[in-house]
Amino acid sequence: MKAKVSIIMGSTSDLPVMEKAAQILNDFKIPFEINALSAHRTPEEVEVFAKGAMDNGIKVIIAGAGMAAHLPGVIAAMTPLPVIGVPIKASLDGMDALLAIAQMPPGIPVATVAINGAMNAGILAAQIIASGDEDLQKQVIAYKESLKDKIVKANEDLATVKYEYRV
Amino acid sequence: MKAKVSIIMGSTSDLPVMEKAAQILNDFKIPFEINALSAHRTPEEVEVFAKGAMDNGIKVIIAGAGMAAHLPGVIAAMTPLPVIGVPIKASLDGMDALLAIAQMPPGIPVATVAINGAMNAGILAAQIIASGDEDLQKQVIAYKESLKDKIVKANEDLATVKYEYRV
Amino acid sequence: MKAKVSIIMGSTSDLPVMEKAAQILNDFKIPFEINALSAHRTPEEVEVFAKGAMDNGIKVIIAGAGMAAHLPGVIAAMTPLPVIGVPIKASLDGMDALLAIAQMPPGIPVATVAINGAMNAGILAAQIIASGDEDLQKQVIAYKESLKDKIVKANEDLATVKYEYRV
Amino acid sequence: MKAKVSIIMGSTSDLPVMEKAAQILNDFKIPFEINALSAHRTPEEVEVFAKGAMDNGIKVIIAGAGMAAHLPGVIAAMTPLPVIGVPIKASLDGMDALLAIAQMPPGIPVATVAINGAMNAGILAAQIIASGDEDLQKQVIAYKESLKDKIVKANEDLATVKYEYRV
Amino acid sequence: MKAKVSIIMGSTSDLPVMEKAAQILNDFKIPFEINALSAHRTPEEVEVFAKGAMDNGIKVIIAGAGMAAHLPGVIAAMTPLPVIGVPIKASLDGMDALLAIAQMPPGIPVATVAINGAMNAGILAAQIIASGDEDLQKQVIAYKESLKDKIVKANEDLATVKYEYRV
Amino acid sequence: MKAKVSIIMGSTSDLPVMEKAAQILNDFKIPFEINALSAHRTPEEVEVFAKGAMDNGIKVIIAGAGMAAHLPGVIAAMTPLPVIGVPIKASLDGMDALLAIAQMPPGIPVATVAINGAMNAGILAAQIIASGDEDLQKQVIAYKESLKDKIVKANEDLATVKYEYRV
Amino acid sequence: MKAKVSIIMGSTSDLPVMEKAAQILNDFKIPFEINALSAHRTPEEVEVFAKGAMDNGIKVIIAGAGMAAHLPGVIAAMTPLPVIGVPIKASLDGMDALLAIAQMPPGIPVATVAINGAMNAGILAAQIIASGDEDLQKQVIAYKESLKDKIVKANEDLATVKYEYRV
Amino acid sequence: MKAKVSIIMGSTSDLPVMEKAAQILNDFKIPFEINALSAHRTPEEVEVFAKGAMDNGIKVIIAGAGMAAHLPGVIAAMTPLPVIGVPIKASLDGMDALLAIAQMPPGIPVATVAINGAMNAGILAAQIIASGDEDLQKQVIAYKESLKDKIVKANEDLATVKYEYRV
Repeated sequence: MKAKVSIIMGSTSDLPVMEKAAQILNDFKIPFEINALSAHRTPEEVEVFAKGAMDNGIKVIIAGAGMAAHLPGVIAAMTPLPVIGVPIKASLDGMDALLAIAQMPPGIPVATVAINGAMNAGILAAQIIASGDEDLQKQVIAYKESLKDKIVKANEDLATVKYEYRV
Repeated sequence: MKAKVSIIMGSTSDLPVMEKAAQILNDFKIPFEINALSAHRTPEEVEVFAKGAMDNGIKVIIAGAGMAAHLPGVIAAMTPLPVIGVPIKASLDGMDALLAIAQMPPGIPVATVAINGAMNAGILAAQIIASGDEDLQKQVIAYKESLKDKIVKANEDLATVKYEYRV
Repeated sequence: MKAKVSIIMGSTSDLPVMEKAAQILNDFKIPFEINALSAHRTPEEVEVFAKGAMDNGIKVIIAGAGMAAHLPGVIAAMTPLPVIGVPIKASLDGMDALLAIAQMPPGIPVATVAINGAMNAGILAAQIIASGDEDLQKQVIAYKESLKDKIVKANEDLATVKYEYRV
Repeated sequence: MKAKVSIIMGSTSDLPVMEKAAQILNDFKIPFEINALSAHRTPEEVEVFAKGAMDNGIKVIIAGAGMAAHLPGVIAAMTPLPVIGVPIKASLDGMDALLAIAQMPPGIPVATVAINGAMNAGILAAQIIASGDEDLQKQVIAYKESLKDKIVKANEDLATVKYEYRV
Repeated sequence: MKAKVSIIMGSTSDLPVMEKAAQILNDFKIPFEINALSAHRTPEEVEVFAKGAMDNGIKVIIAGAGMAAHLPGVIAAMTPLPVIGVPIKASLDGMDALLAIAQMPPGIPVATVAINGAMNAGILAAQIIASGDEDLQKQVIAYKESLKDKIVKANEDLATVKYEYRV
Repeated sequence: MKAKVSIIMGSTSDLPVMEKAAQILNDFKIPFEINALSAHRTPEEVEVFAKGAMDNGIKVIIAGAGMAAHLPGVIAAMTPLPVIGVPIKASLDGMDALLAIAQMPPGIPVATVAINGAMNAGILAAQIIASGDEDLQKQVIAYKESLKDKIVKANEDLATVKYEYRV
Repeated sequence: MKAKVSIIMGSTSDLPVMEKAAQILNDFKIPFEINALSAHRTPEEVEVFAKGAMDNGIKVIIAGAGMAAHLPGVIAAMTPLPVIGVPIKASLDGMDALLAIAQMPPGIPVATVAINGAMNAGILAAQIIASGDEDLQKQVIAYKESLKDKIVKANEDLATVKYEYRV
Repeated sequence: MKAKVSIIMGSTSDLPVMEKAAQILNDFKIPFEINALSAHRTPEEVEVFAKGAMDNGIKVIIAGAGMAAHLPGVIAAMTPLPVIGVPIKASLDGMDALLAIAQMPPGIPVATVAINGAMNAGILAAQIIASGDEDLQKQVIAYKESLKDKIVKANEDLATVKYEYRV
């Protein structure tokens, strides 16, 4: 089994956020790898990773980073693969990371998700891979369908809230 | 020739921004379509489009919107395809559109690019499609390589800047 | 008894904020309903709801949402009824939701209240309905009058604060 | 003919923004008045206006203001009528006015629209009045329907944009 | 003893912030009063207070408010006395209140201090009154001189911090 | 004639903003001086000025500065006189200057007015001096009264705006 | 042993942030001093310090401050030495301090690091001094090299995270 | 003559901002080089440059970048030399670049100057190099002294502004 998605983060402190991406990929039965790399601490390792990712069978890279979050953009500069960036809330409510990831200059896109939105990064990776994988496409469709369940459940919960003038 | 990418915008006033996505797709020889749809003015048409996109052969949707930019998220809610959102600068320097597109709740990702970053949306679409298209993959690699040319040219220009103490 | 106001939220986690709207409507004896709907998880149900609301006797819709808050705008796009949007603080101190609700494009207004301001959403709904309901109008006037009581009480509390040079 | 909507602004310099509200009301054939009042320059006149508005037959008040925009909130404090606030862009891209209008404390709602969003203020006023006016309700429905025309026109315009790979 | 400074707030919940102004005035032996008033809940009482303040011997008014903080500006509109505004942190880290107080339009200044900066409001009031009161002027000078003591104390504390290479 | 107000700025480029303070003081017939000083370029001159201001008969200092605006705070640290700070818009829409002036730490207030609000700085200075000057007090009262004229004029202008449904 | 770096802060409450600079300098065996000074409370002492620093053998000054953070800029105005400014988070998430330190006007630079980034201030000071100190240069190189260890350790930790589809 | 300072930018469009650094270095007679490099377009060249800079005699690197400005941080990760970052205003008034440069994580400082503050970057570079260069130190001192001239000139200009009550 070769990994199709590579989840990268700069620190184990990012794991509580980033493992939501792992969980989703696991649910979709998409093989993935998780590694720590840092645009600032291990630039050479980042380069080795980014340049080899496509040949290693990776289809999508998910990179999370906080503050002046350079990791997703630096990886994107060195691979033709789509890179999904997860802004991690470490200061300024995550606004610094959101801007440092989303505002990439022309030529080097990073697919940015919400602040701490690693779960959505996992889903987006699945959607991208599903393009050429009919079985996964069905799973994605089923997953989207299942989102309604949360609303059904919410309505059941809300049904217990009583007011005299609630109809 | 069936379109693989669908570019959606809410107004012809968005065209000067969004046509950079079209230009890139054209350069990559990826068939695409361009249409105007609005989450607020034509919700039914958005639904018809979004629900039929996959069966119509579309692989990636690029949606641009300004202000309280709902179009990318509303489309994303109704298709399993990856949706790329382009925040368009219409007020507040585009910060409202960036947040209204990037900050999607869990379950419904939108791949957000920079404010007015339609060119990157086109490149990202190409990168996503290239996953299952070796020929396009080579084009993407060549494109990334060609980005260096702009720097080579910049260095030629900078070489003309003269100062006594410039070495 | 048919509901005149419909309170909509995307998650039971929004209930602690949104039930302040319910409480106010209950105090004004305005019949209301509470339901969970999501612009992203149940777009079809949102459409059914929004398109049927007027014929079901609803006069005003109150919709709360956080982050890239699309629910109020999406509902407003599909009903002629006035829609009140409550930005819910879920990230970025609620600034993302405020912008995603208030900054609606021309043609589709959403009456936006303060971040987490569901109580004011309830009062605003009452003010709107009171337009054609003399009895409710009197209640609204009485309510506004009663706001002074809080200040009277505050002055009694402040009277207990002692300083040598307090006159 | 008695005015049903009162449009208030603090300066003639606000007229280019605020007259979009007037235009919409005129289109809906809703009688309205336009006056200049200032929370800071003519507080007594504001009080006289606000306290008398309901008895003068006004159903909705639209107030525009920029910077530390107090006018809508001050009026809302002195009338049971729904007050729509239009944040006018005069500094800080209008963010100051948006916050000074939207962030009203509990008890005194102001229905806030987008920065410079006077057109939506007019539509919202129509939606509110339409509640008890079947004829106007039909107009509002027709208006919402007509919004699609802009998209139809946009698609015609977009059809003229030619690319080799546009399908 | 007649009050020379009037401290106004909209709620007893503002007291923990605002009593720092009271404490400073007490330290300077400047007679003051404390009252609750609200631009939105008791507009008439605000008017009575503001219009009578000068004749009642008040020299400076200190008004604190949060969110869409209108109280200082509304008072300033109805008195020739200098009004000091204290933005109170209630949402958005107090940025909404800062803008709603500082960004007053031409003609009606409010002397704005820092978010939750009631202590500085008290000092500023003392500085203003000291203009015509030689005795208080000396106290203000002595107070400013005494600020150094905190730094002397800080240096004593810092002296206990030991590092091998600390000189 | 000795100056009672000192207007300070860091550059002649600030004059278009700051001379509105001069104009107002001139209208109130309050003697004033205008000088260029810089917290960063002429710190010694700032010190000489600030420490001597009170003995030179100055009652209020108005200091304008942009960007990381230190001038008002640095002056305030060295005088017991009230200092009014004018944030000048030079970058970031003036938000940097607003925060660098308003957010002063406890002990050293600066009376902050709106971004580019030098006119209000002049009025505030007049209000402060009027405290011990009955004649000026009357002028301030008359000035505030005259603000209504602008609204009267605005209403005359608005009266010329014609709509079929304008009442 | 004479101090080469001077760490300045305005309050002992800043010590938990600022001592990370001390710790780094200690690790690099660079002699340093720590003192409390305030641009607002002890302006004369700041002047004495800043003007004498170079002659006292100081090579770099590190100054931390919060809110309207003037200390680094005021020191920079009075010394030819490089000054590193540390914005301290005291309000508004530290954004006020960041802008008040970074946005210095032309002529007086302050080398700004991240909000609460005192550790980086210490490293930057070491990098600056290392320019003329071969031994320290080697330490800096070794330090940068050692940053990789944290990533190695992170990868060991991440290796313990198990998922069925983790490769 | 070997360059002591290296000025790096990502595009010739940055030259109007960045050449202010060149001008200052030229004035100080500090040999420097100017080159275009991009963290995203030429990552390998950036690496070659950054790793070789110290051995090539460079003492300080000045790097300018806009939007999600990664260049200064990426260079800082690969050299022990001090790196000065210039946030260039390209979108969002330069706030994105300021945060993407200043908010560097622990271990890898970038000395950040103001938005578009390349002139200060040049001065800061001179101050750093002056540490071990007595002659340059004198120049820096003289430069700082000369800043007063601008204020002297400003006072001469202001002297021509006439008002009746100007003293």
